[in-house]
Amino acid sequence: MQWQLDVETAVAEAGPGEWHGHLTSSWNIGENPNGGYVAALLLRAMTAEVAHPDPVAMTTHYLRPGIPDADVVVRTEVVRTGRTTSTVRGTLSQGGSDRITGLATFADLGAASGTDHLTIAAPGLPPPDECRPRETLEQGVELPIVERLEIRVDPDAAEPGEAGVAEITGWIRFADGRPADVAGVALFADAFPPSLFGLLGRVGWVPTLEMTVHVRRRPAPGWVQARFVTTSLESGLLVEDGALWDESGHLVAQARQLAMLLTD
Amino acid sequence: MQWQLDVETAVAEAGPGEWHGHLTSSWNIGENPNGGYVAALLLRAMTAEVAHPDPVAMTTHYLRPGIPDADVVVRTEVVRTGRTTSTVRGTLSQGGSDRITGLATFADLGAASGTDHLTIAAPGLPPPDECRPRETLEQGVELPIVERLEIRVDPDAAEPGEAGVAEITGWIRFADGRPADVAGVALFADAFPPSLFGLLGRVGWVPTLEMTVHVRRRPAPGWVQARFVTTSLESGLLVEDGALWDESGHLVAQARQLAMLLTD
Repeated sequence: MQWQLDVETAVAEAGPGEWHGHLTSSWNIGENPNGGYVAALLLRAMTAEVAHPDPVAMTTHYLRPGIPDADVVVRTEVVRTGRTTSTVRGTLSQGGSDRITGLATFADLGAASGTDHLTIAAPGLPPPDECRPRETLEQGVELPIVERLEIRVDPDAAEPGEAGVAEITGWIRFADGRPADVAGVALFADAFPPSLFGLLGRVGWVPTLEMTVHVRRRPAPGWVQARFVTTSLESGLLVEDGALWDESGHLVAQARQLAMLLTD
Repeated sequence: MQWQLDVETAVAEAGPGEWHGHLTSSWNIGENPNGGYVAALLLRAMTAEVAHPDPVAMTTHYLRPGIPDADVVVRTEVVRTGRTTSTVRGTLSQGGSDRITGLATFADLGAASGTDHLTIAAPGLPPPDECRPRETLEQGVELPIVERLEIRVDPDAAEPGEAGVAEITGWIRFADGRPADVAGVALFADAFPPSLFGLLGRVGWVPTLEMTVHVRRRPAPGWVQARFVTTSLESGLLVEDGALWDESGHLVAQARQLAMLLTD
């Protein structure tokens, strides 16, 4: 089976540390590809450089929006290869300009160990069927991405501006049935509407400046559940924290991003 | 006045994107320089490359321990210069091996705006005089760094293993009276004992793999207060979240690190 994500983030090695690919418009939010999708293509090339399979810490700085339906060049450099971890940097360019640049450390998380010494409890959401599809939320932009990702948000927090808190919770999975994996959860961490919507209502595009995802465990099959909270908003910059769990309630990733609140 | 930090992180431009400096042993924890000190020297060179003064997102991956009392070469590359932000990458090497590598986005936070739309409340600590100096905690290593940084931890959480939670709170300032600034708070974010000590007791060295600091505001003069919490521990890797406030209680930085719990 050729899953949509795998086809649409395919990269071919064009030389040492150089990878070619193509960003489609199928993962757009409005006019531009979702940042998580652009990062997924970058991560694909970076993962191919190392033996350790799991991106335990991946930071991406967003320099310029990605261009939909356009070719991509990724340049990668292995910074260090160790026994337990490997570190790689990579930069994705289109049209001669760098779009995103990242730094990731990979390890081998193995099969789920079952020993959560310390963890974050899953949010206790209503089942996906009782949650609200993302596309029914008024967002003011076209959302081609909902053909790729099924996103259901908690109905209690679904009306922009009515939740009273800068929090969004919900479920996510690939629309074509692709199982969640570590690349999937990294993508899911940047696919929900901004949690600020719950407090301020629709606020337009909230561009991500930097995002760090820590994959904590390989997910079990099924839906992934997630909670995102804006913890601070100051001088027009906000920090949003995310946590993601697999369907069985195990923590699979933690994420944090710095984003800009654009004001008219 | 020549403050200790400024002297001991001084860098001289040796060519385009190349900086020379020296790491002292004065900021050691045990045999190695504190990671925050090593990162402070890297940040010094990266800051010198751009016009925007404030590191609003700085990620550092720790590749190998720094070497005390040894020369340093930093290589920097400006990734993008924009109107509101600039992004720089940098790598610090000693003895021909990369020690830490980082990626930072800088902006201009201006003077404190006073408009915290959303913030994290300061922990409500006892005053510094009623807190416990870091050096009175039994840690099993020499702490030359306490000659550079005054650290006072909340006495309620001071006995390793007795707090029952993986949390540490306290106050911090430069020992020589240097005012806190954005470089200072970035350093402070990696200078406390691991918050895991509160839960597990003394656990030896907890090496940081990756750390991201978001500076949220320029600090007011005086002490900085901080809280660190280990939010998850899984497969031998832990995520620790930190928040730092200035003496007046304004949030000045958020930090998150991935670290490794070494087991005998």
